[in-house]
Amino acid sequence: MTSKSSIPKGTRDFGPEVMARRNYILDTIKQVFRLFGYQPIETPAMENLSTLLGKYGEEGDKLLFRILNSGDFLQNVDLSSVNGVSDLLPHITEKGLRYDLTVPFARFVVQNRNELPFPFRRYQIQPVWRADRPQKGRYREFYQCDADVVGSDSLLNEAELVQMVDMVFSRLGIKVVVKINNRKILAGLAAAIGQPERLTDITMAIDKLDKIGIEKVNEELAERGLPEQAIQALQPVLFTKGDAYAKLESLKKIIGHIEEGTKGIEEMTILLKYLANSKLSLQLEFDLTLARGLNYYTGAIFEVKALDAAIGSICGGGRYDNLTGVFGMPGMSGVGISFGADRIYDVMNELELFPATSADTTHVLFLNFGPDEEQYCLPKVSQLRQLGVNTEIYPSAEKLKKQMRYADQKNIPLVVMAGESEMAGNSFTLKDMKQGGQQTLPSASLAKAIHELLQAK
Amino acid sequence: MTSKSSIPKGTRDFGPEVMARRNYILDTIKQVFRLFGYQPIETPAMENLSTLLGKYGEEGDKLLFRILNSGDFLQNVDLSSVNGVSDLLPHITEKGLRYDLTVPFARFVVQNRNELPFPFRRYQIQPVWRADRPQKGRYREFYQCDADVVGSDSLLNEAELVQMVDMVFSRLGIKVVVKINNRKILAGLAAAIGQPERLTDITMAIDKLDKIGIEKVNEELAERGLPEQAIQALQPVLFTKGDAYAKLESLKKIIGHIEEGTKGIEEMTILLKYLANSKLSLQLEFDLTLARGLNYYTGAIFEVKALDAAIGSICGGGRYDNLTGVFGMPGMSGVGISFGADRIYDVMNELELFPATSADTTHVLFLNFGPDEEQYCLPKVSQLRQLGVNTEIYPSAEKLKKQMRYADQKNIPLVVMAGESEMAGNSFTLKDMKQGGQQTLPSASLAKAIHELLQAK
Repeated sequence: MTSKSSIPKGTRDFGPEVMARRNYILDTIKQVFRLFGYQPIETPAMENLSTLLGKYGEEGDKLLFRILNSGDFLQNVDLSSVNGVSDLLPHITEKGLRYDLTVPFARFVVQNRNELPFPFRRYQIQPVWRADRPQKGRYREFYQCDADVVGSDSLLNEAELVQMVDMVFSRLGIKVVVKINNRKILAGLAAAIGQPERLTDITMAIDKLDKIGIEKVNEELAERGLPEQAIQALQPVLFTKGDAYAKLESLKKIIGHIEEGTKGIEEMTILLKYLANSKLSLQLEFDLTLARGLNYYTGAIFEVKALDAAIGSICGGGRYDNLTGVFGMPGMSGVGISFGADRIYDVMNELELFPATSADTTHVLFLNFGPDEEQYCLPKVSQLRQLGVNTEIYPSAEKLKKQMRYADQKNIPLVVMAGESEMAGNSFTLKDMKQGGQQTLPSASLAKAIHELLQAK
Repeated sequence: MTSKSSIPKGTRDFGPEVMARRNYILDTIKQVFRLFGYQPIETPAMENLSTLLGKYGEEGDKLLFRILNSGDFLQNVDLSSVNGVSDLLPHITEKGLRYDLTVPFARFVVQNRNELPFPFRRYQIQPVWRADRPQKGRYREFYQCDADVVGSDSLLNEAELVQMVDMVFSRLGIKVVVKINNRKILAGLAAAIGQPERLTDITMAIDKLDKIGIEKVNEELAERGLPEQAIQALQPVLFTKGDAYAKLESLKKIIGHIEEGTKGIEEMTILLKYLANSKLSLQLEFDLTLARGLNYYTGAIFEVKALDAAIGSICGGGRYDNLTGVFGMPGMSGVGISFGADRIYDVMNELELFPATSADTTHVLFLNFGPDEEQYCLPKVSQLRQLGVNTEIYPSAEKLKKQMRYADQKNIPLVVMAGESEMAGNSFTLKDMKQGGQQTLPSASLAKAIHELLQAK
């Protein structure tokens, strides 16, 4: 029987070219994570449903991929009493694929609370799965790339996360703006306009200020049932201009009498002071309309956007006060960020920021002209590998055209040839596939010439 | 509601310490793969059941983790006609988690046949899932780590795979023996003793020679129905001694008249010649009793064992002639190896081969004595990070004991302290956590001192 070769919708294969680029991004991020003392953990793809259910809202529960139990799972099920999926589920599935990295991380922290060093800094780069309707840019399997520190409420952690964002995007060559806000300031605002219970309504509307403009925001606030007076009271805030310090001064006038608001202003002031001393390359913007993940975050909120590409947020995060409470370990404050690997990939593609060769690609191909030539080349091939050059020799003496096509297809920048004349002269001919030039070199000079050409690429 | 924090049986969390060690192994292997021109691919965790079913035998089908369909999957099912699991399955599941990396690789090659450069060399390091009964050393989720080249029948590929094995284990510091054999030689033997149809019976018995000895092997051959005469004819082979060339000479006498056997001897001779010129550090052994994965391999067979640890095979592979045939693309010959990451981990643990610090671990912790001291330290922390040193500063001025305990728990080798006197002298005190000594250094000398201490570790 011949099987059709296809993959489930919403999933992807990553071939060598895409992998080299993805790894370039992820390796850069990992390196920065480690420079700041964040260390990797991995959790299983499958979690018990009791760990996952109820953590992502009703909609999230529906989007979990569930694993069918093994063996004869219908043995004790009376099918005549089953009236639908929800009757059957408890009997046939007790595990699901992880939906994000945050809940497994919380579960991990609680399960290993006695062994872990606190403050615990971890990074985690693993795929997650969601049974969402697939569409452009939305997949059923995708990588998340998170760094979090739990067990410390020092704002130095927030500052270092922004420094990490700065270092990652500097190294990748992407110019970014980091927008920061603080939930406590938003809560102070809601209280100051007499609508402390309407925090979510208010922020959901003003979150759209960039997209729909002030008038539509005001309309939406009215639709959400905010009294005209409250909407008017909010206007100065929406129009607050100037740098972060100027904004904080105007805010003090509006929310300075609200305890939570004052705390938010204090936190923002400390964070800005840390960042002012950090020699950041990125643009920093205190954006009062940033309300990302508000139901979740309790302090700082971050969002990163690329300046030269019209794409949404490529990184975001914030502080949360009770990550592990749901697993029976309350009062563990944490702060974290998540890099959007797929979107960063798209930005780098659009701006052509990927290097031509990377650690993953083959640097040199030796052509194969026959058994004697092969034997002449093999020690040189080994030597280059020992020197750290990714090197291949074509495994058989196929037609030259076929071998050159292989070099082209694999995008190999350098090709080495050795026929009778090279063998007689103890030399090799080195061809630059991009520039087109070629030179015949003494055997002893080949490695150095290759090294120099690769450095220049 | 508080959720219990536990993970499904047979799965594992990997904490930072274990991850650092696993990454040390996997990074070493990846680096070698790339030096030989193998490039990474990744395939989705979920495959269509039509891709997976029937590829691993009946037992394998049972061990697949199946994914429940989403939505109202019972809508069109008449439950009254369902008499057991097998009636229900087709209605409720059409995807499964990958069981190995070989079948997804074959599917990938066929699906992308028109874009891939052939010979196609890929490596793939991803988890696989099997609903096996968990036991010591056997998990339901574990990583496979494969390198394969398809579309070339040159024996240079086999030789390079052995070179890769040699380079990987040299770099890891594990002394190994590589056993090699060839299925064509075994087939020649079966034919020579008049039992060409009994190849599997013969090899399954002689595969155990190391474990159970010659007498038990002969008993088993008899039990499997081999005539006494055939068993006697086999004895000279089982006792064949000497180096690989001597063995090939004796074999020629026994199977030289069998076409397939002669082909096997030729292949082995060419491979041995390649390897003789390869300056290998490993021990090489032509082992006629090696029959690993025989139903699968059609040419060379490899198996790698650690010399100083009593553990089974830590790496294995071989050539197969028809990997992609089942997906409608016949005649694609390939050869590959698979590294057993879990077992290599156990060997390295047992022999204490892991380095004390690695790319994943924090190298330096700055203690935090208060706001002024923190501000004094922060530029130095940044500088070290820019120089590639993984550096943390404790995020708040906790008690010294607590901060030191954190350094201990995280196994951080160097601690930097700066109090009033260091600040006054523009200096830092550097403490070596392993050796116990400490020195106070001018600020300008700190990075160099740290670099030297880390180099020595």
